[in-house]
Amino acid sequence: MHQISSSVFSNAVEQLASLPGIGNKTAVRLALHLLNRDADEIEKFGKAFLELAQEINYCSTCFNISNHSTCDICANPARNTELICVVENILDVIAIENTHQFNGTYHVLGGIISPMEGVGPNDIRIAELIERIKNEPVREVIMALSTTMEGDATNFYIYRKLSELDVEVSTIARGVGIGDEIEYTDELTLGRSIVNRVPFKNTLTI
Amino acid sequence: MHQISSSVFSNAVEQLASLPGIGNKTAVRLALHLLNRDADEIEKFGKAFLELAQEINYCSTCFNISNHSTCDICANPARNTELICVVENILDVIAIENTHQFNGTYHVLGGIISPMEGVGPNDIRIAELIERIKNEPVREVIMALSTTMEGDATNFYIYRKLSELDVEVSTIARGVGIGDEIEYTDELTLGRSIVNRVPFKNTLTI
Repeated sequence: MHQISSSVFSNAVEQLASLPGIGNKTAVRLALHLLNRDADEIEKFGKAFLELAQEINYCSTCFNISNHSTCDICANPARNTELICVVENILDVIAIENTHQFNGTYHVLGGIISPMEGVGPNDIRIAELIERIKNEPVREVIMALSTTMEGDATNFYIYRKLSELDVEVSTIARGVGIGDEIEYTDELTLGRSIVNRVPFKNTLTI
Repeated sequence: MHQISSSVFSNAVEQLASLPGIGNKTAVRLALHLLNRDADEIEKFGKAFLELAQEINYCSTCFNISNHSTCDICANPARNTELICVVENILDVIAIENTHQFNGTYHVLGGIISPMEGVGPNDIRIAELIERIKNEPVREVIMALSTTMEGDATNFYIYRKLSELDVEVSTIARGVGIGDEIEYTDELTLGRSIVNRVPFKNTLTI
């Protein structure tokens, strides 16, 4: 591809193209879009990431990103700290918060065990989870990881580690999605939904 | 959507989501991707845009973006300065340069006339084009704008302005794309390709 003879421009393009899902052509388009803005608007764009680099904080309890050393969820006295939902990343926290169905706290692992990508149990925040359970009155840990091979491996590793402690371990329900048709549901999911069936009267409370 | 309780994070997300084609969810994903990098890598990302805001230069002749006051194309003595190709933006320069079929120089309008979006002839660099033709020995101006209503209006406006000057005005050929099938070509394009047919021997030189 023809090189643009401006190093500041091609540098900006390169940085944008380093993001996942953004190719070179899109990056040029985005950089041109930025260039159409006033200089101080472009500066504001750049400064947002300088601040991200310098000022980002993680909650010292659950490792959610936060303005303070304790995040809003952990600091909220209305949340049930006896219940910890274990998730892979912050997107999962957002997704679960959006359901308005969970009143406990979270533990963000910051990844899942993946031997293929060289991520071992010590590369994610499992030790911190165990420490938390030992020091706080935690009653139940809800595993909410993806049903991939890596997710299952992480689930099992944590389950084994926690079996030594006085805490219940549960996992979120897998089954036919609400609005999904039975005939188009894959066999694994449908099979699991039959094995893990629930009393009908329980579904009436939702 | 659930708000993330980190103003630096949500500020970065907001800035990313301000780019065209990037929704809020994608912006969160991109910001998390950035957060996985080392702090100095994130800083590098931000600084690229501070530099873009502060140091971007435009070629004083053709308004291509450039490191210097004259861009590499205009400064190249091998390029034919008697031939000016008029384009809407820098992406078009890149596209035409990639064909390796054009040896003249460019003139980047920086937009097209669009009454709907409040862009008039004085908002794009038409006066600069006329100035250039008056002061330099320009023989031919090739219009290379999109065949939209706005492109046609801009073509016609510039054509009328240039008719007072001693310069040829041409437009890039419209016709059936190479590799396209005749039966699937739209009528307008196919019709134009018949009206503007070229001697067969001319096609042998390409």
